Amino acid sequence: MPDSARTQAAAGRPLVTLTTDFGDRDYYVAAMKARLIGQCSNVRLIDITHQVPRHDILFGSITLERAIDGFPAGSIHLAVVDPGVGTQRRILVSRLKQHWIVCPDNGLITWAWRRLGPGQAFELRWAPDGGAASTTFHGRDIMAPVAGMLACGRDVSDLAREIDDPVLLDIAPAQSAGDEVRVIHVDHFGNATTNLSIDAMRALRKPQVRVTTCDVGPLRRTYWDVEPGCALALVGSSGLLEIAVRDGSAAQALRLRVGDRVELHESAEA
Amino acid sequence: MPDSARTQAAAGRPLVTLTTDFGDRDYYVAAMKARLIGQCSNVRLIDITHQVPRHDILFGSITLERAIDGFPAGSIHLAVVDPGVGTQRRILVSRLKQHWIVCPDNGLITWAWRRLGPGQAFELRWAPDGGAASTTFHGRDIMAPVAGMLACGRDVSDLAREIDDPVLLDIAPAQSAGDEVRVIHVDHFGNATTNLSIDAMRALRKPQVRVTTCDVGPLRRTYWDVEPGCALALVGSSGLLEIAVRDGSAAQALRLRVGDRVELHESAEA
Amino acid sequence: MPDSARTQAAAGRPLVTLTTDFGDRDYYVAAMKARLIGQCSNVRLIDITHQVPRHDILFGSITLERAIDGFPAGSIHLAVVDPGVGTQRRILVSRLKQHWIVCPDNGLITWAWRRLGPGQAFELRWAPDGGAASTTFHGRDIMAPVAGMLACGRDVSDLAREIDDPVLLDIAPAQSAGDEVRVIHVDHFGNATTNLSIDAMRALRKPQVRVTTCDVGPLRRTYWDVEPGCALALVGSSGLLEIAVRDGSAAQALRLRVGDRVELHESAEA
Repeated sequence: MPDSARTQAAAGRPLVTLTTDFGDRDYYVAAMKARLIGQCSNVRLIDITHQVPRHDILFGSITLERAIDGFPAGSIHLAVVDPGVGTQRRILVSRLKQHWIVCPDNGLITWAWRRLGPGQAFELRWAPDGGAASTTFHGRDIMAPVAGMLACGRDVSDLAREIDDPVLLDIAPAQSAGDEVRVIHVDHFGNATTNLSIDAMRALRKPQVRVTTCDVGPLRRTYWDVEPGCALALVGSSGLLEIAVRDGSAAQALRLRVGDRVELHESAEA
Repeated sequence: MPDSARTQAAAGRPLVTLTTDFGDRDYYVAAMKARLIGQCSNVRLIDITHQVPRHDILFGSITLERAIDGFPAGSIHLAVVDPGVGTQRRILVSRLKQHWIVCPDNGLITWAWRRLGPGQAFELRWAPDGGAASTTFHGRDIMAPVAGMLACGRDVSDLAREIDDPVLLDIAPAQSAGDEVRVIHVDHFGNATTNLSIDAMRALRKPQVRVTTCDVGPLRRTYWDVEPGCALALVGSSGLLEIAVRDGSAAQALRLRVGDRVELHESAEA
Repeated sequence: MPDSARTQAAAGRPLVTLTTDFGDRDYYVAAMKARLIGQCSNVRLIDITHQVPRHDILFGSITLERAIDGFPAGSIHLAVVDPGVGTQRRILVSRLKQHWIVCPDNGLITWAWRRLGPGQAFELRWAPDGGAASTTFHGRDIMAPVAGMLACGRDVSDLAREIDDPVLLDIAPAQSAGDEVRVIHVDHFGNATTNLSIDAMRALRKPQVRVTTCDVGPLRRTYWDVEPGCALALVGSSGLLEIAVRDGSAAQALRLRVGDRVELHESAEA
């Protein structure tokens, strides 16, 4: 099954991305890299972010989907936002679009699963010899070595058994403007991404966008289609409806937060 | 013309540096890396910083010059501080001292152009097939692929046409202490860098340095030449006059900001 | 003596880790990487952190020990927290457990030396030709090139002479619960690590842990062994006693700081 991982391992340097809520001040991220290199010496490591807000599984999930969508087939993605570390929560290995994902089975896989999948899910059975795993850092002791093994072409059946019930959060892409549209992510610039895709928007005639108490008008092409400081709606770089403020922060100016409703209605004009 | 890029591509791993104002919380930086790797699988990626203050082209320009000065000939530098993304602003490819630079044509190239150049400037003509570029993220959709192509030895004439009018900011190295000397950058430690180079300073006899309302005395060799908490002037690691406070922040203690005037006069003493 | 570095250099890509207090906003970290690559073109660079609080040698020392402990033998570790740059302070090259460490001789080596060593210490004698070192950035001008030379297999005797008195901070692992136990590090999550190792704890019968005015109870296995918001003690991922608050910050909730005393006593219960 891990054809692509094997192919990549054979052809060149296998690529592992890392997404965590560890921050960048401590040794934790490097600890995982040390184990990855220990398992697969020529692995190529790409940081996605380590600034996922602490324990924010939804934020991690949105980010992880981007990584899977962006990197070449055969990549391995290690995502650790793991408030339940050391409990009986499962560790998940997933197969989506010829990528491998290793993460806690706490919903981190949701957005990728719903937007790019579904794929295959496996419950990890591998553990280090002699109970050498800490109870506080499975990212380093279990998940990083497993990602390293997959990167070097190890067969998933050696490590995990297939399951059909990965934990999924209560969030899904809106299939049409009639579905509930909500803010799912606020970025560094204060831009607010929703769960409504460009395809669902195409079905609408001249959509007008409204958030909370504020009208943000029709869909624009670029931030410069409005005056500085003005709010606008456009299709963001991830192909989803985005609410922004030119040269400003939509999150601040419009007090937008993850979970806020966004409404679309067709223009009354001809 | 891209001899050096070709040479490096042939000899080993081509090196691309990245400088942006994207922050480190979102997927945006990794999105550019995915495209770079997609274009040039063995590219070597070095982050300069992604903490350029939002839309601060001058800050980005000062940083970019350092990257070009520091890395080996044949390196490619991708710099994206791009408030005008999606508008008609040009995308610039520059050739300076056997380096390639890819950035928006909004003045980002200025400090390198004035301090290390001038070089050659090209307007990018390449675009992804079928209009696949987003209108909000040319860093990912246009500039990263172009940097990847240059890294793998693609000839610039396939991608861009030469121009003679790159956009330049109104900032230049002071050639002598008679020129206007200003703070151009404040670093993480609160040290304030000016536009006056060590060469221009050499022409001065025992220069005394003054900022706003404060005398900071003669040029020192190291931070330890004054007592803790005291202000001093020295030649910083980029070869420019720097104002610092030992074990403290000159920006805070002396309320220094980018743009502030710095005065030098020769000592009255024998 | 540098067998391992030589072996690694021969076998594959030598690995250099970087730990500094430079932050991630400026060019400084990349400046060191440029020199490392200049000395050793195929070097592999791993950032540990650049968020060591400014001039916090103890913090840097705790972090550096983790890097040496985690990465494979033959790795080189460059650590720069250097308030005394440009003074007569020595630059240290250390050999610990088949790793090389390059850092200022200001106590940065302490925690690794005491926990993993002692090892060998050398005073650096190498300097760039013609006095080309700045007086403000020895990390770039001296230490990075030396780390690069060691990475490419240069013999330490070409660069440094052995000494027996590296500067060490007044901090040491507690060998037993009778020794003074203190908080030595507070991480991103607000978890407080102490200097008491799991081995020293094993000698205690049912230890009860107390910090300042607060009882944190017996040793737990995982964060989830207490209710959300409650304090607990456990063995952290570095094998040291750690004080945490489930889903919270021990540093905030218990007002813990580096240097605070932690008391252990055996349970009165049978």
